[in-house]
Amino acid sequence: MPRIRVHSLLEYQVRRPTTLLFKVAVQESPGQSVVDESFACKPSFQLDSGSNGPAGDRLHRLHASNGEFSLEYSATVELDNVVEPPCEVEELDLVDLPAGVLPYLNPSRYCESDLLQRFAYEEFGDLSPGYGRVRAITDWVHEHLEYTPGSTNGLSTASDVLLSRTGVCRDYAHLAVALCRGMGIPARYLSVYAVDLHPQDFHGVFEAYLGEQWYLFDATRLAPRGGFVRIGAGRDAADVAFATIVGNAALNDKQVSAELLDDSKLEAPGSSDAVTIP
Amino acid sequence: MPRIRVHSLLEYQVRRPTTLLFKVAVQESPGQSVVDESFACKPSFQLDSGSNGPAGDRLHRLHASNGEFSLEYSATVELDNVVEPPCEVEELDLVDLPAGVLPYLNPSRYCESDLLQRFAYEEFGDLSPGYGRVRAITDWVHEHLEYTPGSTNGLSTASDVLLSRTGVCRDYAHLAVALCRGMGIPARYLSVYAVDLHPQDFHGVFEAYLGEQWYLFDATRLAPRGGFVRIGAGRDAADVAFATIVGNAALNDKQVSAELLDDSKLEAPGSSDAVTIP
Amino acid sequence: MPRIRVHSLLEYQVRRPTTLLFKVAVQESPGQSVVDESFACKPSFQLDSGSNGPAGDRLHRLHASNGEFSLEYSATVELDNVVEPPCEVEELDLVDLPAGVLPYLNPSRYCESDLLQRFAYEEFGDLSPGYGRVRAITDWVHEHLEYTPGSTNGLSTASDVLLSRTGVCRDYAHLAVALCRGMGIPARYLSVYAVDLHPQDFHGVFEAYLGEQWYLFDATRLAPRGGFVRIGAGRDAADVAFATIVGNAALNDKQVSAELLDDSKLEAPGSSDAVTIP
Amino acid sequence: MPRIRVHSLLEYQVRRPTTLLFKVAVQESPGQSVVDESFACKPSFQLDSGSNGPAGDRLHRLHASNGEFSLEYSATVELDNVVEPPCEVEELDLVDLPAGVLPYLNPSRYCESDLLQRFAYEEFGDLSPGYGRVRAITDWVHEHLEYTPGSTNGLSTASDVLLSRTGVCRDYAHLAVALCRGMGIPARYLSVYAVDLHPQDFHGVFEAYLGEQWYLFDATRLAPRGGFVRIGAGRDAADVAFATIVGNAALNDKQVSAELLDDSKLEAPGSSDAVTIP
Repeated sequence: MPRIRVHSLLEYQVRRPTTLLFKVAVQESPGQSVVDESFACKPSFQLDSGSNGPAGDRLHRLHASNGEFSLEYSATVELDNVVEPPCEVEELDLVDLPAGVLPYLNPSRYCESDLLQRFAYEEFGDLSPGYGRVRAITDWVHEHLEYTPGSTNGLSTASDVLLSRTGVCRDYAHLAVALCRGMGIPARYLSVYAVDLHPQDFHGVFEAYLGEQWYLFDATRLAPRGGFVRIGAGRDAADVAFATIVGNAALNDKQVSAELLDDSKLEAPGSSDAVTIP
Repeated sequence: MPRIRVHSLLEYQVRRPTTLLFKVAVQESPGQSVVDESFACKPSFQLDSGSNGPAGDRLHRLHASNGEFSLEYSATVELDNVVEPPCEVEELDLVDLPAGVLPYLNPSRYCESDLLQRFAYEEFGDLSPGYGRVRAITDWVHEHLEYTPGSTNGLSTASDVLLSRTGVCRDYAHLAVALCRGMGIPARYLSVYAVDLHPQDFHGVFEAYLGEQWYLFDATRLAPRGGFVRIGAGRDAADVAFATIVGNAALNDKQVSAELLDDSKLEAPGSSDAVTIP
Repeated sequence: MPRIRVHSLLEYQVRRPTTLLFKVAVQESPGQSVVDESFACKPSFQLDSGSNGPAGDRLHRLHASNGEFSLEYSATVELDNVVEPPCEVEELDLVDLPAGVLPYLNPSRYCESDLLQRFAYEEFGDLSPGYGRVRAITDWVHEHLEYTPGSTNGLSTASDVLLSRTGVCRDYAHLAVALCRGMGIPARYLSVYAVDLHPQDFHGVFEAYLGEQWYLFDATRLAPRGGFVRIGAGRDAADVAFATIVGNAALNDKQVSAELLDDSKLEAPGSSDAVTIP
Repeated sequence: MPRIRVHSLLEYQVRRPTTLLFKVAVQESPGQSVVDESFACKPSFQLDSGSNGPAGDRLHRLHASNGEFSLEYSATVELDNVVEPPCEVEELDLVDLPAGVLPYLNPSRYCESDLLQRFAYEEFGDLSPGYGRVRAITDWVHEHLEYTPGSTNGLSTASDVLLSRTGVCRDYAHLAVALCRGMGIPARYLSVYAVDLHPQDFHGVFEAYLGEQWYLFDATRLAPRGGFVRIGAGRDAADVAFATIVGNAALNDKQVSAELLDDSKLEAPGSSDAVTIP
């Protein structure tokens, strides 16, 4: 039951009255308990308790005036992720999926599963349905992309990345999500804090809906999945951007960290174990 | 208070065991009462009461075996849409939007508002915020596109259409939605039955969130907005496809109709009146 | 030495004074002798001898007035194509390529070799350079695309087709050209009349520059390569469109044919023989 | 008759045996006399006299071994550009264009004139054909794009830029070229050395074919057109890249300069004068 300290600091230069929407606070969810949590703004601003987005993500909004503005967030979290041996869980028939899961079958801005369906079926159509197939998609993405900071940008999509074969965590997740959806497997993008991620930053991974729950995968293999602290899920990165800005504010500095506070053992990145929220 | 009879018949040739998901049933919502409703399948199949998608859309799923399969739906609906003179309602600040509305600010598969933001600000940034600006966006789309069946397909996006300047109702709605979102105005795609639409078919329009509710717009001006019967809303057409097929089923025939049963007067298409659900 | 009769008839409805540019006449080239040739326009119009485009293609231009307009072309051609067993010819180093061939290394509108380079190297980088590698690219395209009339349009590109996995002859050629260029092999699109093509139409194939000449390939395998009569070559289909129209003229009918006049034996489509112009 | 000294130095780290193709040498053309010229390579390498590309561009190719490699080029050039008051020259009918100019009507990799045709006609279709219309296109591009280094990359196209409204010289030229071609006006990309360009670098501009010759335009207005020294022309930037690399060589440093050696007066950037080669 790992205990983790997460922290993020976002510093802006605000050039005119601007509205900011942040998604940096961690979720309170069955496998993830928030022990304590604090926000601090400069100039001083009393954040309310935030709102909940459609997939359980928490969001905070505020107005900022001209000048410097920073938001600092920290929290202590206890995880109760279940990390189990590779499992035999099945893909569900379309008829059996919960209605709330169905939107994660649809193509989204950065996950054009409609464009990639033929490719997905050709590459993965002969594999047995289930956990192993999503595992195979994740491995394929890991093996065929080259992790290259700066090679993509905020407009890059799964099909761009399938051709260019380069990207960062966001792109790895988008491509895997699009390939899953192309095969009829619901999949969503997940934003997390990650222990042992180097360099420290927000991390983007994904979940596929198998059996009766969401299973977590990370095609980058850059950090242990057991050390991920959930911020929010969405159809793709557009839904869980750490900051949305209406006005004019330049990000001057971003510091992110996640530190294991106890001596829990985290499985190595890339293991084929199944990671879920109970 | 128009009373409308809607009907749709979808006939398929199923070539192997196939799962179908339909979104053809009308919503039960404040401004729209379902007086009666019936489903009929051939071969006979007892449809359950359906599920509700995330934006109030109703969906029905079933398995079909090899051979012919058809689904027939009909309903009598009473509308209580409010049709008012052009109004002065405002765009909301990001801070004031309901959390459930926020996803409709994000780019989606067919509405790449991130790509069109600069264009939108250049074209519409000088207009006064509010209902009039969405009206202006709708008019711009109407005037700059040419309605041309066959000129686009199911993969066409708002940016494609902005360049090609042609499309069908789906494309008109996608472009208007993307331009609204590019301006920071929440907007969503709406699938409807439409009285006096020629040729009769499902129709695609859009809603923008202004003041404290959704307002309906139709950039095509092909049918009176007061005669629209809501099927479902979504981020774009991907969310409200009338049928999703996993397997192999070819659509042999599609018949759609919407008929006014009383002598209500419907405003002419393209009027600048405001249409909302109370 | 096959003797072939080619014929094309293009009928237009001209709606305002319009200029038309045709590329339907066959090339006079080392391996291809034009025995006789005739043009006929209705209304009567005396075509001049035409101009030569940059890659040896011939073009005819004319003005047409309102009303019906047709151009009929026919020619008898003797081919002296060399059809040889699969050969061992090498790819040339960039330093050794003739300067006139270099533009066929660059990406073009429908052959985005810059986008497909990574994919090409991953798929074909381990193969031995030379004729066999281009053969492998051609086979890969044949095996991974599904020939589906109507699945693409005049704007479809190699990367579109790589994802959608469907297309017609034009798309097969574009994808193969882009993959060759992505590997550093000069390649160009070739428009031909084709004996035994069903249904009869203009055909699009491609050539790769190997050793010291252009070798012809057809990823569709729809007709024997020995029965191709060359119209023109270009960077992609944009350069050899059979008609370019400035004004307003709708194509009412198009008839194309190519008929073998003697009892020459043409190798079966898809053979691995090398076909060149001497 | 301005006398100009141009210079470029390209330094590479070569990581394995690599072939390089350079296009840095200036053209010898009617309006541009090369007074003297020198090449120097380190390690020492005797460049041959180069080859001529299809549009008069000169190219030099060589092999480089592992280690550092640099190419230094300098030349003294006398220009005899004709700079005249805004002129009344006409667009030519398709029938009257020289055959060698026709390819510059076709869409190319970075100038998708087929996609932008509708936009072009809507925006510029009502203007009088001729020099003034190309001038209006150039002004439109200047006014609607924001010059933003780093906002685009080597894969950005005219339609990307039309939406994003940002770019560098290459993007300005591509968009203007695509809009001209979309209107039926032949246009090509031109790579030049430019006096008084800050910061000094290779510059990308464009030419349109009007009357019986090519006219030069620069939508960026960053340097006087009378001080441009021509390197080469092509369908778009793909044809005139300053270096093409097959192998692995990283550009460590690039220095480019163009200096006016006499006291010629150059017209201010953005003037509406006509600039041609006699």
